Amino acid sequence: MEIRHTPRLFVESALAAGQAVTLGPEQSHYLRNVMRLAPGEVLRLFNGKDGEWKGAVVEFGGKGGKASCSIRIEECLRQQTTDADLWLCAAPIKKAHFEYMIEKATELGVHTIQPMLTARTQIREVNSERLRGIAIEVAEQSERLSVPIIHAALTLKELTAKWPQDRALIVCAELGDAKPIHAALLSPQLKAAKKCAILSGPEGGFAEEEFAALRKIGNATFVRLGPRILRADTAAISALVCWQALHGDWNVAETSRDKTIDEISP
Amino acid sequence: MEIRHTPRLFVESALAAGQAVTLGPEQSHYLRNVMRLAPGEVLRLFNGKDGEWKGAVVEFGGKGGKASCSIRIEECLRQQTTDADLWLCAAPIKKAHFEYMIEKATELGVHTIQPMLTARTQIREVNSERLRGIAIEVAEQSERLSVPIIHAALTLKELTAKWPQDRALIVCAELGDAKPIHAALLSPQLKAAKKCAILSGPEGGFAEEEFAALRKIGNATFVRLGPRILRADTAAISALVCWQALHGDWNVAETSRDKTIDEISP
Repeated sequence: MEIRHTPRLFVESALAAGQAVTLGPEQSHYLRNVMRLAPGEVLRLFNGKDGEWKGAVVEFGGKGGKASCSIRIEECLRQQTTDADLWLCAAPIKKAHFEYMIEKATELGVHTIQPMLTARTQIREVNSERLRGIAIEVAEQSERLSVPIIHAALTLKELTAKWPQDRALIVCAELGDAKPIHAALLSPQLKAAKKCAILSGPEGGFAEEEFAALRKIGNATFVRLGPRILRADTAAISALVCWQALHGDWNVAETSRDKTIDEISP
Repeated sequence: MEIRHTPRLFVESALAAGQAVTLGPEQSHYLRNVMRLAPGEVLRLFNGKDGEWKGAVVEFGGKGGKASCSIRIEECLRQQTTDADLWLCAAPIKKAHFEYMIEKATELGVHTIQPMLTARTQIREVNSERLRGIAIEVAEQSERLSVPIIHAALTLKELTAKWPQDRALIVCAELGDAKPIHAALLSPQLKAAKKCAILSGPEGGFAEEEFAALRKIGNATFVRLGPRILRADTAAISALVCWQALHGDWNVAETSRDKTIDEISP
C-alpha cells in the first residue's frame, strides 16, 4: 500500500525516530478490527508538534476496554508546519449544524475555535470534548498536521471585554455599513494582520447592543457576505474560505504535502 | 409585523398587482397552521421571474389534502434580479452531505446544479425532485429571488462531450498543476468569463482518465483549495464562495434588499 493510503492517527505522545508509542483501546480496535492491520504493517501518526511520522505495528494486546497496540516510530514523512493564527468565534447553533461547522472549520485549517454565547443564542450547552473528537477525526482524514484548539464557551461580553489589541476581528454582519468581504480582506489593516479572528453570530444575528459593543473594538471590521441571508454555519464557513484563499495557506502554489507525496510515492 | 419578517413563499404562478393566486395543500397548511395567518394578513411571494411581491390572505378553504388558500397580490417589494450564470456540476455523495451541498449552493446563489456521475461515484441515484424541495425551502429562507435549476444526473462523459465553448470550467483538483483558486479566478480567462461552471468530484476524486479528458477542454482551469484534503462538499462550497466573493454578487457594496428593507421598514 502506498504510504499516503495508510491509516493516519492523531496521538498525544511525542514522536521521534525509534520512539515506542502505545495506543489506547479505541485506536487499537480501529487498527486491528476496522483497518485489519497486522504486526509489521505501517501507519502514519501526528501530534500537532512533531510533524507526520511513519510507524509500524509491533503488537496488539488485550481486548475490548483493555485493547492496546504498540507502535515503533520509524521516519519523519513531513515536517510540522505552523497554522495561520486564525480563530473562529462562533455562536453555537443546532447540534448537527454546529458539528458541521466544526468539521468544516477543521478542514479549513482554523487554529482555534471559541464557542461564543450571544443575546440571541438559543443553544447554550456546548460539549467541547465531543467537538474535539470530531475535529480530531477530520484532522486525521484531511491530512492536517494539527488539531484545532476548542475552548469552553464564553459570552460575547467576556470575549470582547478582553479583546487582544493585536488581533484583527472580522465580524460577519448582514446589513449596515459592512464591506464586501473580498474588499475588506484587501484593506491595509487586514492585509497586515498577523492574528485574526472571525466572529459569526447565531441564527437570529447579533443584537443591536452587541453590534454597538463590537463597533467600539478598534480593530473590528464588519464584512458582508452577499445579498442573500446565509445560515450561521454558511456564514462562518464562507468567511474562513475567503480568508484562507486570500491570506492563508491556500494562496501558495505548492505545498509540503505534494512534495512529500511525490518523493515517497513509488 | 415588519414585512421582512412575514412568511415568504415560492410559487409557480405569475405575480402582478391585483392577481389572485391559489396555494396548494402544503403551503396552505403552513400558512394556516404553522404560521397561524388569518385572512387579511400579509406574506411575501416570489416565482423566480417577477420579483418579490406582497400578498394578503383572502381566505382558507378545504382541509388536509384538499386545503387551499387564496391570496391577493398587492405590491411589488423587489424587482427581479438576474442570477450570475454559475453552474455547479457535482458528483453525488452520501445523502446528508449531498443535501447539505445543495442547501449551501442555493444560499450561495448558484444558477444551475448538475449532478454528475464519475468513475469513482459510489452514489448513483439522485432524487432531483427531493433536492428541488430542499432548494425551494432554502431559497425562501435566504431571501433569494429564484430557485436553482436542478437537472437529472449525467455522466461526466456526457457532460464533457457537449461542453459549451463559451462556458469556463473550473475544476476542483487536489494535486498536480492546479493553481491556487484565488490566483486562478484573477486570470484574464476567468475574469472575462460571463458563463462559468464549477466541477467538483466524488470523495475519491477524479480518475486519471477523467482528468485527461478534462484537460482536453480548452476552457478548463484546474484549481487547488489549499494543502489539506477537503471533503467533496467542502470543496464545492469553497469554490462557490470564492467565485461569488470575487466575481459574483458578493462583490457589491449595496444590494437591492438593503434598499427595499430601508424603504419599507417603519
